[in-house]
Amino acid sequence: MRTKYWLSLFLLFILASNVIYSQRIKYVNPFIGTGSMGHVFPGAVSPHGLVALSPDTDTIPHNVNGVYQKRAYEYCAGYQYKDSTIVGFSHTHMSGTGHSDLGDILVMPTNGPLKLNPGTANNVNSGYRSLFSHSKEIASPGYYSVFLDKYKITAELTTSPRVGIHRYTFPKDRPDNRIIIDLIHGIYNYDGKVLWSSVRVENERLLTGYRITSGWARENYQYFAIEFSKPIVKYGYKDKEKKKYTGFWRKFNQFENFPEMAGQGICAYFEFGNIDSLTLKVALSAVSTRGALENLRHETNGKDFDQIRKESEDEWEKRLGRIDVKGDSLQKVMFYTSLYHTMINPSKYQDVNGEYRGLDGNIYKATNFTNYTIFSLWDTYRALHPLFNIINREVNRDAVLSMIEHSKQSVHKILPIWSHMANENWCMIGYHGVSVLSDAIAAGIDLDKEQALKSMVSSSNFVLYDNIGDYKKLGYVPFDKNKSGASITLEYSYDDWAIYQTALRANNIPLATEYKSRAKNYSILYHPITGFCTPKFADGSWKKDFSPLNTHNEGFIEGNSWNYSFYVPHDVDGLISKIGGDTKFIQRLDSLFTMHLPDEFFEHTEDVTKEGIMGNYVHGNEPSHHIPYLYSWTTQPWKSQFWIREIMNKKYLPTVEGLCGNDDCGQMSAWYIFSAMGFYPVSPGSGELILGAPYLPELIINLENGAKFTIKAMGVSDKNRYVKSVKFNGIQYNKAYIRYEDILKGGVLEFEMVDKPNKKRLFRNDERPYSLSSSKD
Amino acid sequence: MRTKYWLSLFLLFILASNVIYSQRIKYVNPFIGTGSMGHVFPGAVSPHGLVALSPDTDTIPHNVNGVYQKRAYEYCAGYQYKDSTIVGFSHTHMSGTGHSDLGDILVMPTNGPLKLNPGTANNVNSGYRSLFSHSKEIASPGYYSVFLDKYKITAELTTSPRVGIHRYTFPKDRPDNRIIIDLIHGIYNYDGKVLWSSVRVENERLLTGYRITSGWARENYQYFAIEFSKPIVKYGYKDKEKKKYTGFWRKFNQFENFPEMAGQGICAYFEFGNIDSLTLKVALSAVSTRGALENLRHETNGKDFDQIRKESEDEWEKRLGRIDVKGDSLQKVMFYTSLYHTMINPSKYQDVNGEYRGLDGNIYKATNFTNYTIFSLWDTYRALHPLFNIINREVNRDAVLSMIEHSKQSVHKILPIWSHMANENWCMIGYHGVSVLSDAIAAGIDLDKEQALKSMVSSSNFVLYDNIGDYKKLGYVPFDKNKSGASITLEYSYDDWAIYQTALRANNIPLATEYKSRAKNYSILYHPITGFCTPKFADGSWKKDFSPLNTHNEGFIEGNSWNYSFYVPHDVDGLISKIGGDTKFIQRLDSLFTMHLPDEFFEHTEDVTKEGIMGNYVHGNEPSHHIPYLYSWTTQPWKSQFWIREIMNKKYLPTVEGLCGNDDCGQMSAWYIFSAMGFYPVSPGSGELILGAPYLPELIINLENGAKFTIKAMGVSDKNRYVKSVKFNGIQYNKAYIRYEDILKGGVLEFEMVDKPNKKRLFRNDERPYSLSSSKD
Repeated sequence: MRTKYWLSLFLLFILASNVIYSQRIKYVNPFIGTGSMGHVFPGAVSPHGLVALSPDTDTIPHNVNGVYQKRAYEYCAGYQYKDSTIVGFSHTHMSGTGHSDLGDILVMPTNGPLKLNPGTANNVNSGYRSLFSHSKEIASPGYYSVFLDKYKITAELTTSPRVGIHRYTFPKDRPDNRIIIDLIHGIYNYDGKVLWSSVRVENERLLTGYRITSGWARENYQYFAIEFSKPIVKYGYKDKEKKKYTGFWRKFNQFENFPEMAGQGICAYFEFGNIDSLTLKVALSAVSTRGALENLRHETNGKDFDQIRKESEDEWEKRLGRIDVKGDSLQKVMFYTSLYHTMINPSKYQDVNGEYRGLDGNIYKATNFTNYTIFSLWDTYRALHPLFNIINREVNRDAVLSMIEHSKQSVHKILPIWSHMANENWCMIGYHGVSVLSDAIAAGIDLDKEQALKSMVSSSNFVLYDNIGDYKKLGYVPFDKNKSGASITLEYSYDDWAIYQTALRANNIPLATEYKSRAKNYSILYHPITGFCTPKFADGSWKKDFSPLNTHNEGFIEGNSWNYSFYVPHDVDGLISKIGGDTKFIQRLDSLFTMHLPDEFFEHTEDVTKEGIMGNYVHGNEPSHHIPYLYSWTTQPWKSQFWIREIMNKKYLPTVEGLCGNDDCGQMSAWYIFSAMGFYPVSPGSGELILGAPYLPELIINLENGAKFTIKAMGVSDKNRYVKSVKFNGIQYNKAYIRYEDILKGGVLEFEMVDKPNKKRLFRNDERPYSLSSSKD
Repeated sequence: MRTKYWLSLFLLFILASNVIYSQRIKYVNPFIGTGSMGHVFPGAVSPHGLVALSPDTDTIPHNVNGVYQKRAYEYCAGYQYKDSTIVGFSHTHMSGTGHSDLGDILVMPTNGPLKLNPGTANNVNSGYRSLFSHSKEIASPGYYSVFLDKYKITAELTTSPRVGIHRYTFPKDRPDNRIIIDLIHGIYNYDGKVLWSSVRVENERLLTGYRITSGWARENYQYFAIEFSKPIVKYGYKDKEKKKYTGFWRKFNQFENFPEMAGQGICAYFEFGNIDSLTLKVALSAVSTRGALENLRHETNGKDFDQIRKESEDEWEKRLGRIDVKGDSLQKVMFYTSLYHTMINPSKYQDVNGEYRGLDGNIYKATNFTNYTIFSLWDTYRALHPLFNIINREVNRDAVLSMIEHSKQSVHKILPIWSHMANENWCMIGYHGVSVLSDAIAAGIDLDKEQALKSMVSSSNFVLYDNIGDYKKLGYVPFDKNKSGASITLEYSYDDWAIYQTALRANNIPLATEYKSRAKNYSILYHPITGFCTPKFADGSWKKDFSPLNTHNEGFIEGNSWNYSFYVPHDVDGLISKIGGDTKFIQRLDSLFTMHLPDEFFEHTEDVTKEGIMGNYVHGNEPSHHIPYLYSWTTQPWKSQFWIREIMNKKYLPTVEGLCGNDDCGQMSAWYIFSAMGFYPVSPGSGELILGAPYLPELIINLENGAKFTIKAMGVSDKNRYVKSVKFNGIQYNKAYIRYEDILKGGVLEFEMVDKPNKKRLFRNDERPYSLSSSKD
C-alpha cells in the first residue's frame, strides 16, 4: 500500500508537468483515478458531452464462449494507467462506472505494414496497437495528447459535445500514413456484440456509417460522420465475421476502394500517403447518419483543431468556475479534478436539432429540454444530482425531464434504474429515480409535480422488478426470494419516503399517507437483539447463522449489514432507537470507522476493495457515503467533522490511483465536493444538507442565478478540523443543516475552525436535521 | 408434361369453385402460377401494398453452413401448391421473383401442446405447422382462407396497404387457443439472418416490435404493431439464439409474461384460452413502431375484418376495372389474373404520414409522391413499366420518383438495379432504371427531365459496376473480364439509347450525341460470319469454340446467343443488316421458334426451364420477350401474329402451374396483357408500341384521365389470328406501331381478323417502327 502510494505520488509529479495550465482547468488532472479502481478515462470530453474521446489501452472481452472474464471489470473506461500500449482512440466512454460498455468507433493512425487487428499487449507488432510512454502523454479538460512510439505519430484529441476531433502529426517523408477505423473494437466486447455495422465513403474526405451493438446496452445505435482534412488516396477493409451471403459478394471486390462496407466484423483502413498531419472530425448521433452530419456541421464547420480545443477549454473553465476555492495547489488539484469528474455524466443524448432515440427505439424531438443519458442512479442520486441542484441546475432539470420521458417511453412506465444509450440495463437495486425527482422538487427545480408523481408511483409499483410485489405485501423483500432482499428493503423504504415528500409538496394527501407508511418498512428488518438489519424469510423468520460482516450472500448487495444497517437516511432518529439509543448508536458508528474488516468478508465483492476501506467503513462503494454525517443526529456531532476530513485526506489522493473506488459517474467526486463545502445531502428529498466541516479556507459558489454563496472556514487545517461556531450572513447559525433555498439565495456561511471539538455545540430539537419519526409532517 | 397439364387443369376446376365471385375480381385466380416456376403467392394483398399476407408452406434455408440449398429457389414466394403443410402466415412476399427473401413476422394460430418451432413437412407434429387441404382453401384478390386440419382452425386473411388482418375461427370449447409469432421464420432464411428482433407487450391487446434481418436485402428493417381483438391471457417466448449476456437475464424471468422480449431467435406465444374467434391486425413500417402504430390506426381503426376485406376487394375491382374485356370465362380468368399480377409490385414503402427509409438508411418524408420499393428492373422495364404508362400512370410516376430519390440517396448516385426494402441487391445486369425513366418521359409522364438525366447519366458511368469502365473504353465488356460480357454489352447499348432518347427530349444535344454513339456499341460483338452476338476478349479477339446454343458460360447470363442475339430492340434495322438482311433475319427468327434446344444447353440455368421454351425461344425468362414482335420490321409481319397467339395459348394456362417461368414482379403477366391488347413495347423509350394482333374480341382501356381506348378484333379466334386490316378511329391505319400519345387521347383501334395472313399488308418506310440506324434523329 505505502509503496504504491508513493509511487503514485511520484507519477503525479511527472503528470503535473504535462498539464496545460490556464486558470481553473490547470488544476484538473484527468489522470487521477485512471489507475486501479477509479475507472475514469483520461481522454477529451466536453462538459456532459456525448463524445468522450479517449485512448483504449486494452480490449478485454467481457466473456469468452460465455465465461465471464474478470479483467473486463478493470477496463470499464478502456484505460488502465499501468498499461504500456494503446489500441486506439474510441469515442464513447462512461466515467468511473463499475460495469463496462461502449468504446465505439475506434480510430488509430498507423504507417508501415498494414495490420487490421489490434494485436496483443505482449506482442505489439502482431497488430496495429502501439507502445506509448506516460512521459509523452498529456491530459487536461478538453485535450489529450500522446506520442505513439511505434509509428512516431503524435496524436492530439479534443471534442465538441457531439464531435471528436483528432489531429495526427506524422513523421517526415513516410509514404504510407493511414487511419484505421475498427468497428469491431469495443469496451465490454465479446463475439457477437456487433449486430451490424456499415461505412459509406461519401467522397474523398467524408465517411458516414453506423454500428448497432448488443452489449450492456441491449441495443446501442451509434451513427457517425467522419470528415478528413485531406483526401483519402485509397482504402479498404476486412470483414472478420463475413456473413454467409449478400448479393454484393458476386459483383464487386468490396474490400478495396468500394464505397460501401457492411458486416459484423469490419476493420477499415484509409491511406493518405506522405502527409505531415491530418485532422479528423468524428461526429456521433444515436438517430441517423443525417443527424451525425448535422452535428458535425453545426458544431465544427470551418473550425480547426485549435479553435475547437479553445472552445472546449473555455466551456470547461466556465463550468469549473461555478466554484472558486482557496487552498494549496494539491488541494486545488483534488478539488477541481473532482469537480471535473462531476460534469462528465450524464451525457447529452440528442442531436443538435433536438432529435434523440427514446427507450422504445422511436425517434423523438426534444422541444423544451435537452435529453441526457448514462444514469448510474444507484450511485448518483446520493450526492451527484443534489450537487447539480446547487451548481448545475439546468443540467439537472434536463436530466429529470429526460428521466420522465424515459418513464413514458418505458413499456413498464417506470423511471430509469440504470440507463444508458436508450436502454435500461437494470443494474443494482432500488428505484432511485424517484429520489432524483423528489430532491429536484425539494430544491425548487420547476417541474410538473403531478407528472413526476405519476412516474414515481408507477416505478414503485412495478411488481416484476426485484420483488416489489412481496415488498408491498410483506413490507420487506424476503431473503428466500431475493439474496439482496435486506438491502433492497432499506432502499425501497428510503425511495418510498422520497415519494412521500413529493406527495406532500404536491398536496396529494392520500398518496402521502400511503408512502409515509411504506417509508417505515425498513424497521421490520432490524433485529431486536443485535440491532443489525437482518434478512427475513417470507415466513417471517430471521436468517440463521447471520454474519453482519460478510459482504456476500447475507442479504445485502455490495455491502455488509454493518454498513448497510446505517442506511435509513430518511429516519435516522428511528434508526437510533432501533439500535438502542444515542450512546449505542455512537458506539456503533465509532466501531465502524475503527474496527478491522478482514479480507475474507469482502473478497467476493468486486466493488468493495481494500483501498476503499477505513476500518469496516467502506468509502469505495456507495451505500455508506452518508454514514460519516450521521453523528449530526447524535450528541457528538464533532465526530463527523473528524472522520470527514480523515476520509478526504486518505481516500482522495491527487494521484493516478488516488480514487479509492469507482468514481461512478461522479458520485465519489460529488461526495468530495460536498464535503469540501462543509455539508452533505444525507437524505435527498428533504431539502436539507447536513453540516460537516469545510475543508478549505474559502469556497465561493457562483450560482447560475447570478448569486454567490460563500463558505469561509478561517484557520481550517488538518489540525483545525473542528467547528467551534457557525455564522450565516453574520448571524449565529445553530442548525445542523442548511437548506437548498438558503444556499440558492446566496450568502455567507462562516465556520470558525479550531483544533478541539466544541463539545458544547449540540443541536436542540428544532435545530436537528429531519427524521421521519420525529417530524411533524 | 401432358399429364401435368391435365392435372393442373383438373386442379383449376376445384379452385374455380372456391373463388369468391363479384364482378371483375371473380376472374382472378391467385393460385395460377403458385405451382412449379411461377413463384407467385396466393395470399391477400392490396394493390401495390406493402403487406402481402400469405401462407408459407415451407422454410427452405438459403444455405446451410454456407452451402447453397437449391430448393430455396422453389420457395421464393414461400408457397408451393404441391405442399400439404402450412407453417404459418407471414406478412411480406415478393410476387414471382427468381430470388427469395422476406417472409417477415410469421403468425400461426394453434392449440394443444405448445410448440415453438415450425417442425418439418414430414413430421408435422414435430412443430407448430399444420396439414391443410386445397379443398378447404380459398383465394381471391384481397382475401385468402384455409382450414388448418391439425388445429381445426379456419384462418382468413385480408389486408389494407400496410396492415395484414387475420381472422381465426377456433374449434368449440378448446381452452388452449393461442397465437404463435415467430420472428426467426423467413423466406431465404439461414442461420444468422436475424440481426436483432424485439417485441413489447404494450397492453393486453397490443404488441409492438421489429426485426432487422440481413438476407437478400442486406439490411431489412421491419417494425410492426399488432392489435388483438381479445385480451391476451398469458404469454412468453423462447430465444433460440440466446445472446451471451444481457443485464436482463439476472433480474427477470423474461420468458414468461415479461413485456419485453429481445434477441436473435425469438418465437413467442400468446394464449387466449377458450375463445370462438380472434382478429389480429398486423401493421408494418420500415421506419419505426410509432409509424406502424400510425399505419394501424389510420388504415384499420374501428373497422372489422369484413369491412377491410370489402375495401380491399373494392380497390381491386376499381384497379382491375382499368381494362374491360370480352371473351370466354377462361380467357377472362387468364386476363384478369395476369392484370392482378401486374398490380402487386412495386410496393408502397412509406408510412401513412409519408415517412420512409431511404437507401442510405436515413428516414425521409415523401411530400409530393408515394415511395415504392421492390424493383425487379431487369425484368420489369420491358413491359410492366410501359403498361403502367397506360393503365397505372400514377403508380409509375411515383415509382420513377422513388427511383430518382434512390439515386440521390445512393453513395454511387445511381438508379436502382434491383432494389427492395431500401437496399440495392445488384441482381442481374444493365442499368435499366434509365429505360423506365426514358419510357415514362416518352409516355408524357411529368418529370424533371434534367434531374432524370442526371440520375441516368451517373448510372451509366458507375465504373465499379459490371465493367462499365471497360465498356466505355472498348465499346464492349470483354469476356475475359466478365463471363456475362456479351449480354451486358447488348443491354448497356440499349440503355444508352434510352438515355439518348431522353437527352433528345431534354434538348441536350451534346449528351444526345454521346449516348447515340454508345447506343451503337452492340454492333461490335456481331460476328461477321455467323451473325451471332459473340463474346470478345479485351484484346479484340473472338471467343473460340463458341456455342450459340449453350446458356452457360458463353458470355450471356440466363440465356444463349441464339436468343440474346435478337436483343437490339432499339436498332432492329441495324441488327437485320448485321444478321445479313431481311431474308436471313426472317429465317433466323423462324428457326428460333421451331428448332429444338436440347436440355444440356440450359440445365445449368435456374431461370431457363423446359416449361418456358418453344423451340429454342425462351419465354420463361425475360431477354427474349420482345422477339416475337421483331417480324414487324421485316417483310413478314404476320408471323408475329402467329407466334404471339401461339405463346399466349401454350405458355399462359389458367392452371396452378400455368406460368411457364417466374412472373418476375408482373413482367411475364404484363407481356400477356400487352399481347392481348395487340401491341407491345419492344423498345421502351421510343414511345412506340409495336402491333401484333389482339387476343380478344373487345378490350376497353379505361384511362386514368377519363378517356377510353377501345381495341376491337372482330371475329378473332385461334383460327382467325391474322390481321387483315386496321382502322384507328374509323380511318385505315397502316403503321406497324401505335404511340402512347395516341392511346392516351382515347379512341378506337379496330382489327379485322382473318384465318390467313394478309401478305400484302406490308409497312412502308414511314410506317415501320423506329430503328436507330434508320432514324432521322
